Amino acid sequence: MNSKLFILKIGGNVIDNPEALSHFLKELAMLKQPFILVHGGGKVATEIGKGLGVEAQMVDGRRITDAETLKIVTMVYGGLINKNIVVQLQANGKNAIGMTGTDGNCILASKRPVKNGIDYGFVGDIEKVNAKVLTDLLQNGLLPVIAPLTHDGKGTILNTNADTIASAIAVGMSEYFETHLVYCFELPGVLLDINKPESLIAEINEQKYQELKDQEVISKGMIPKMDNAFNAIHAGVKSVIICQATHIKEIINENTPKGTVLST
Amino acid sequence: MNSKLFILKIGGNVIDNPEALSHFLKELAMLKQPFILVHGGGKVATEIGKGLGVEAQMVDGRRITDAETLKIVTMVYGGLINKNIVVQLQANGKNAIGMTGTDGNCILASKRPVKNGIDYGFVGDIEKVNAKVLTDLLQNGLLPVIAPLTHDGKGTILNTNADTIASAIAVGMSEYFETHLVYCFELPGVLLDINKPESLIAEINEQKYQELKDQEVISKGMIPKMDNAFNAIHAGVKSVIICQATHIKEIINENTPKGTVLST
Repeated sequence: MNSKLFILKIGGNVIDNPEALSHFLKELAMLKQPFILVHGGGKVATEIGKGLGVEAQMVDGRRITDAETLKIVTMVYGGLINKNIVVQLQANGKNAIGMTGTDGNCILASKRPVKNGIDYGFVGDIEKVNAKVLTDLLQNGLLPVIAPLTHDGKGTILNTNADTIASAIAVGMSEYFETHLVYCFELPGVLLDINKPESLIAEINEQKYQELKDQEVISKGMIPKMDNAFNAIHAGVKSVIICQATHIKEIINENTPKGTVLST
Repeated sequence: MNSKLFILKIGGNVIDNPEALSHFLKELAMLKQPFILVHGGGKVATEIGKGLGVEAQMVDGRRITDAETLKIVTMVYGGLINKNIVVQLQANGKNAIGMTGTDGNCILASKRPVKNGIDYGFVGDIEKVNAKVLTDLLQNGLLPVIAPLTHDGKGTILNTNADTIASAIAVGMSEYFETHLVYCFELPGVLLDINKPESLIAEINEQKYQELKDQEVISKGMIPKMDNAFNAIHAGVKSVIICQATHIKEIINENTPKGTVLST
């Protein structure tokens, strides 16, 4: 049996709050299993873009990445946020190595074609995760921390959604490990009513997911996350959990069921 | 005998010129020996800082790094410049991995104490290069590309001079390799008269260096570079060359003497 590997994804809400991030990274440093951390970007890029006179343009929750925006996300995701996470993990005794999909050629992507008149600009759809490189790093005792940037192999960096990256890495790494994908965010998991934490769905399969989507109970922002998750399970990932960032240690070290567990 | 490893340093002048950088990276991709590339920062950080309302403050050619400047250099050196180099090396077929001294704990430093009333801020003096981590990466076929940032192991990123980093890596790696340190810049090497390329000093030893310093022939900007270089030779580095970036391929692949070769 392959050994366990956790692919953890944290989003903007944790990153935008320095105290929450610092607490989360302290908890991560206590995990007893190897992991790869994928982080999003969020507000910081928007703020720095504004400071430099570049306004964020969004279509369906996705950033339109023109040449100037690409520079900003390369700086903010690949530099500021990534190194801020790595330096804190280092301080807590974990030998983290910050990367983008460009580094070690670890995530190859292709520029998204213009579709229905929408040009997302420098946005990458993932072609291939280089699981060998990431496995070598893990075997050398390093924990990859991955910023949501990929490249096309021809010299262009591309902006790629962090949820999608986490899912693709979990799938790719399932060649070498028993992979578990964990989406950490600010809510307790998938909720029937976003205002009621007690409405948590502890387990969900594809049939139930389809029903809840049809009833429009599952909110828009959750749909790509869950689609990614179910795709990952079909492609070899052992489990997917959507949970509150503050519960990560219990879930991994104590095997306590928390958040929403997805199954087919 | 240990195998050869080149530690190459490129400065701001090459980085500030996209065509020169692109040409240099194409040449690097043709090198037949493994290398570690250390890059500086320069104008880009100053310009982006200005855009964000943070003015560069310099003392003796070194940037004063307050908290806001640290954010900017982390973004620009660790993100923008580093990933721009990596993506181009990847496009040319070299499996580069972009790093700062924080990543893989590869360069530990301590914050420079206030001295003679000058507080450099978040500037790091190198304590230790983690040669094992860099060696593991090289053995996995990866070429480290290192931005001039270090960390204190306690959660703080520090800004460190790229020449010093290159020299410290060359010394550290001499435990595992026969190391050669190459400072690449825009001039043909060390010149007796900065306006006359034909005044190149092809070879220089410490005695001659001391004489030229005493005569004030060697310019101010060259002194820390040469001090670093001689320190490196004393500490185990096999050779140090100061040369024009455009000559890198001839020097390494064809073993052609170019630039200024330093010896004890």
